Amino acid sequence: MFTDEINTRFCDTDALGHINNTMIPRWFEGARDHIFKMFTPDLDISQWRLILAKIDVNFHAQIYYGKPIELRTFIGRIGGSSFDVYQELWQNDTKCASGTAVLVHFCYQAQRPESIPADIKAEMEKHLYVAE
Amino acid sequence: MFTDEINTRFCDTDALGHINNTMIPRWFEGARDHIFKMFTPDLDISQWRLILAKIDVNFHAQIYYGKPIELRTFIGRIGGSSFDVYQELWQNDTKCASGTAVLVHFCYQAQRPESIPADIKAEMEKHLYVAE
Amino acid sequence: MFTDEINTRFCDTDALGHINNTMIPRWFEGARDHIFKMFTPDLDISQWRLILAKIDVNFHAQIYYGKPIELRTFIGRIGGSSFDVYQELWQNDTKCASGTAVLVHFCYQAQRPESIPADIKAEMEKHLYVAE
Amino acid sequence: MFTDEINTRFCDTDALGHINNTMIPRWFEGARDHIFKMFTPDLDISQWRLILAKIDVNFHAQIYYGKPIELRTFIGRIGGSSFDVYQELWQNDTKCASGTAVLVHFCYQAQRPESIPADIKAEMEKHLYVAE
Repeated sequence: MFTDEINTRFCDTDALGHINNTMIPRWFEGARDHIFKMFTPDLDISQWRLILAKIDVNFHAQIYYGKPIELRTFIGRIGGSSFDVYQELWQNDTKCASGTAVLVHFCYQAQRPESIPADIKAEMEKHLYVAE
Repeated sequence: MFTDEINTRFCDTDALGHINNTMIPRWFEGARDHIFKMFTPDLDISQWRLILAKIDVNFHAQIYYGKPIELRTFIGRIGGSSFDVYQELWQNDTKCASGTAVLVHFCYQAQRPESIPADIKAEMEKHLYVAE
Repeated sequence: MFTDEINTRFCDTDALGHINNTMIPRWFEGARDHIFKMFTPDLDISQWRLILAKIDVNFHAQIYYGKPIELRTFIGRIGGSSFDVYQELWQNDTKCASGTAVLVHFCYQAQRPESIPADIKAEMEKHLYVAE
Repeated sequence: MFTDEINTRFCDTDALGHINNTMIPRWFEGARDHIFKMFTPDLDISQWRLILAKIDVNFHAQIYYGKPIELRTFIGRIGGSSFDVYQELWQNDTKCASGTAVLVHFCYQAQRPESIPADIKAEMEKHLYVAE
C-alpha cells in the first residue's frame, strides 16, 4: 500500500457544501504516480508506457473541506499486459470513496499492448490489495 | 437522448498531447444538467434532490484538442429510488468514451432515499438507452 | 470582438453557492483559441508559437450556475513581440469578470521572442478593444 | 511567510509538456487557507468573511511534472477593509510564478465591506512580504 496525505482546497468544493465528485479522479490519478514510477522511474513523459482503459469511483460518504484526506493506493489485479489499481480515500477515519483504474502496459511506438515485465510484476505483488 | 456540443480547451490537454482523462467526468457531470432539471427544473441548489453513488468511464479512443466533441446523455436504468445515466462522448464520428453514473433520488432533510415520482419516471422513459 | 457562449456546470461551483473564481482563467484560456488560431490556424501543438507571461482577473459580480455565460475576447494592446488579450465574462446582462492575458510570440526552437508578423498584426487590429 | 509543499500531478500538465497555467490560481487559492483561517479559524463556510476582488499571476519559468513545488504565502498590503496576499511558486530553486490576490473583509449578511479587526491586522503584520 502507498499512502499520500493531501489537503482539500476551497476550489475543490461545490455548491452543496462538500468536495465535488469530479475531484476524486484527479486525486486518484495523482496518487497513481507510485505506479507510474514502476514503469517510468523518473516520470519522463517521452518514456511513457501506460494507457488508461477504465476508471470507476464509488462514493461512500461526504468529503469535507478544511480537513486532510488520505489516499491509499494498491494493486488490485495483475494480468498479462493490463492491471488494476485499487484506491481508497479516507477522511476522519471514514472511507469516503474507493475506485479502480484499469491500466495497460502499452508501447506507444508499436501502438500495441505489451506484457508487464517480470520485475515490475514482482514489485506490484508487494502492494496487492488484500480484502480485510 | 440529449446532446450537447462543446469545445475542448488547451487546458484540458495533458503532456501526452491529448485530452486528459479527468476531464470526462467533468463533461459528463455538465451534461447531466438535463437529468438534474427533471428533479429541480430551475437548478436551484437549495432544492437539490439527487446524490451521486457511483461513476465509471471507459476510454475507447484518444480525444483531441481543437475539435468539438458531442456528449450524448441517456437514461440507462430506472430503479425504485436510484437510476443510471449512461453517457457517450463522440469526436470525429468516433465514440471516444462512455460511462454510467448511478444517481439516487435523495431527501436531504430526511437524509434518506425516496422513490422516484411517477411523472419523472415517465419523462425518463423517453430517454432510455436502446443498444444498437 | 469574438464571442463564445458556454454553460456553467455544477462542478464549477464552490461551497459559497456561486461559480468558483478559479474557473475564469480556464474559460478565458478556452476563449483565447480565437487568438491562438491567428498564429497556429489548425491549433497543431507542435507548431505552437505563443507563451503566456501574465494574467489578471477582476471579479465584478457573482456568477451563477444554471445560466449561460458569454465570453467576449478582444485584443487589448499590440506590441513588438508581445500583446494583450482583454476578455470579459457576461451573465444576465452583467459584466461579472474581466481580465487581461499578456502573450508573447515565441520561437520554441530558438527559445526567444519574435516580432509579431505584419499580417497577424493586421488581423489583430480588427479586434482591438475600444472602451465605451 | 507560510510555506506549503505539494506534488504536481499528471493531470496538471498540458500538451506543451509542462504544468498548465490555470493550475496556479488553484494552488494559490489552496495556500490562502492560512489567510482564510485568520478570519474563520475552523474554515466553516457558513461563517465566511472574505470576498475575492482581483488576482494576477506572473509566469517566470516553466513548472515541471514529477517534482514537488513550494508555495510561499505572504501578506502584501494591509488596507482598511481590503488587503493583498502575495504568493510565490518555487520549484528546483527557481521562482516559477508569483501573484497577488486582493481580498476584502466582507459581511455577507449586510452585503458590505467591513474594517479588518485590529487583532487580525496584528497577525497579518507577522507575515508581511519584505522585498529582498
